[in-house]
Amino acid sequence: MKISILTIGDEICIGQIENTNASHIARACVKTGADVVAHSSVGDDLDQIVSEINRLTAFSDALIISGGLGPTHDDKTKEALLRFFDDKLVLHAETSAHVRDFFERRGIEIAQVNLDQALVPSKSVPLRNPVGTAPGMMFESDEKLVFSIPGVPDEMKYVLYNSIIPKIKEYIANNNSEVTLHNTLLTSKIGESALAELIGDVDDFLKNSSLAYLPSYRGVRLRISASGKNFADCESKISRFKEFILNKAGNHVVSEDDDDLGALLAEKMRKSGKTVSVAESCTGGMLGAAFTDYPGSSEYFIGGVIAYSNDIKINVLGVSKKTIEKFGAVSEECSKEMALNVKEKFKSDYGISITGVAGPSGGSPQKPVGTVWMGFASEKSVFAEKFVFGTEREPNRKRSVGMAQSTLLELLNNKR
Amino acid sequence: MKISILTIGDEICIGQIENTNASHIARACVKTGADVVAHSSVGDDLDQIVSEINRLTAFSDALIISGGLGPTHDDKTKEALLRFFDDKLVLHAETSAHVRDFFERRGIEIAQVNLDQALVPSKSVPLRNPVGTAPGMMFESDEKLVFSIPGVPDEMKYVLYNSIIPKIKEYIANNNSEVTLHNTLLTSKIGESALAELIGDVDDFLKNSSLAYLPSYRGVRLRISASGKNFADCESKISRFKEFILNKAGNHVVSEDDDDLGALLAEKMRKSGKTVSVAESCTGGMLGAAFTDYPGSSEYFIGGVIAYSNDIKINVLGVSKKTIEKFGAVSEECSKEMALNVKEKFKSDYGISITGVAGPSGGSPQKPVGTVWMGFASEKSVFAEKFVFGTEREPNRKRSVGMAQSTLLELLNNKR
Repeated sequence: MKISILTIGDEICIGQIENTNASHIARACVKTGADVVAHSSVGDDLDQIVSEINRLTAFSDALIISGGLGPTHDDKTKEALLRFFDDKLVLHAETSAHVRDFFERRGIEIAQVNLDQALVPSKSVPLRNPVGTAPGMMFESDEKLVFSIPGVPDEMKYVLYNSIIPKIKEYIANNNSEVTLHNTLLTSKIGESALAELIGDVDDFLKNSSLAYLPSYRGVRLRISASGKNFADCESKISRFKEFILNKAGNHVVSEDDDDLGALLAEKMRKSGKTVSVAESCTGGMLGAAFTDYPGSSEYFIGGVIAYSNDIKINVLGVSKKTIEKFGAVSEECSKEMALNVKEKFKSDYGISITGVAGPSGGSPQKPVGTVWMGFASEKSVFAEKFVFGTEREPNRKRSVGMAQSTLLELLNNKR
Repeated sequence: MKISILTIGDEICIGQIENTNASHIARACVKTGADVVAHSSVGDDLDQIVSEINRLTAFSDALIISGGLGPTHDDKTKEALLRFFDDKLVLHAETSAHVRDFFERRGIEIAQVNLDQALVPSKSVPLRNPVGTAPGMMFESDEKLVFSIPGVPDEMKYVLYNSIIPKIKEYIANNNSEVTLHNTLLTSKIGESALAELIGDVDDFLKNSSLAYLPSYRGVRLRISASGKNFADCESKISRFKEFILNKAGNHVVSEDDDDLGALLAEKMRKSGKTVSVAESCTGGMLGAAFTDYPGSSEYFIGGVIAYSNDIKINVLGVSKKTIEKFGAVSEECSKEMALNVKEKFKSDYGISITGVAGPSGGSPQKPVGTVWMGFASEKSVFAEKFVFGTEREPNRKRSVGMAQSTLLELLNNKR
């Protein structure tokens, strides 16, 4: 089943917001076995929206449109759907009641633009959206599905998971559609081309499968994709391809299961029964934030000290003033003291520290921008690692978090 | 000048990575006065890439293609360009020397796939990319520009800012192209429809200008856009529209200058000469990370305590055990103690705390998921604010950071 995604809004075209809806919708669709073949974004322009609906439905079994359903004058999606389907608006009583209730509960006076949200194209099936006031819509014609959902992420997600994904699963089952599955392996501390060289020639597998290399700050991911007549067929293709890769590069693979490094660590930490605390300088809280991205992180993440200034490193974390004077805050010695002291102060099993020159300024010939020291303290040992990343502040901070996570994973896997 | 952006890669289509390149490229183009009219993403499929180049160049003056230039077999962009422009590969000596040097410096053996990066279409002008090994490419024909750049963000940015943006500026100047400018006002602590009601009817301004409402966790933004024959023309249109809006809703506007709330705070904090520290529970370091997103943040951000567990709240932050027993960790009392204690421990002018039930579990009838208390301590006062956000963990954490930043801004503006 081929799906296209159309996201609407000038704010997307001009880059004022990140288009996280498109990727979120895509991920949800891919899990059903559907193949997402195109993303498109256009501004709040009626003609352009109609033309894109026309183009994308021509080669897709389903089109999911997100955005442009708000109450203000810059929202054009409903008008575009009316034009494309040659349809007119009718009042949807259930939505009307919901909209009234929505405002009443909050004690806010209701405006006409809000009430108008209950007007939907007569050929559509309205899709319930309790999170907001604009309902989703579904059109079914010529064996094709067109969905329209609000752009507000929480509303998009509600309609997506409660109405659209079930409908897509039903479509795949009823039409015996070809399915596509993906399996992603996560590698650690090895670059893209070194990995490609290790794996070597994969031509034998490329008839109905594919392999992609995805570099990221949290390790290179290897995605194996396979298409076939059903899930079992895809799974067996993927399994043979995966075996081949594990034989060649298994040493570098830290997860075989589509895991993000953070999610993998969260699971490993929880299973280990150990706890961790952090002492962060240049990352300013990002490592702690990464640990707490996951529900249930309080089981293993105790907390940390954001020791952005040297005073805090000395007075709160107890790093020796002499260490900083002699070696500087970005040094093996300082990173080790930070890691050990936070571990002891927070009574955790592991202590991790990050101290570096994130940039863009602050570098020196000895410690150029991108120099980062990370300290790791456990019951068994205290050690430090040095990295020299690039010149850009944000990538340097993200790479630091990724490397600290990779090394903690090594510790948990007894590879350190 | 109309620009389209085409991003290539299965990983984008299936949502495995966020398409941050498209938005970054768009933002850079928009600053030149160009109008970004469409984004498109397709997978690593040769036919589909060629067809998109064909479609997008038909209605754009320039097309910027990102991705698909890597050394592995899944990269198809160069082949697509050869087919579209009916061209063949030639060796580019300068790139060849750069690629050899790139690997030599790092002491890595060079492979044939790496050397092949120096083969470029004969009709293209190679664009220097010192960050990686794949050069960018520029094609100029029929008064249209087609650029191709690597998908690795740091490489994309280098080629974008050093080669593409200067060329776009030159094009606009040489062709007397119509330009489009945007001005975004940032509001604080008011919702989208309340704001729309305050502003009222704007039809008088909508001939050659537009107004868009952009809700976000960091406040609703109001974007005014205007097109015209030159920058001065656009600026005068925007200025009249802006004056109208400020008259209606000026009280809620915290920035008139396209600022993100974080960037605005960074500037205000620096100018104030004051310092801030944080005590974070449910946000786990996100507020600290948000402060340190900006270069130079060490001037005002001292650090903080990530007090994820109650033990740390008590033993490191010095919150009274009785407070937590009596009122709970998510309470006015606890948030105030956290804010005051971190301010004193870190000797900063402001202390901010966040403690809440981020979700998805952990709620109770009295404190449902989404309940967040924030404490603020300054020389003058200690107070707390309570919010009840939604049921989703990540939005709750992001909204908490946005609200804490909004209130700190109010403090800096003496509105508290």
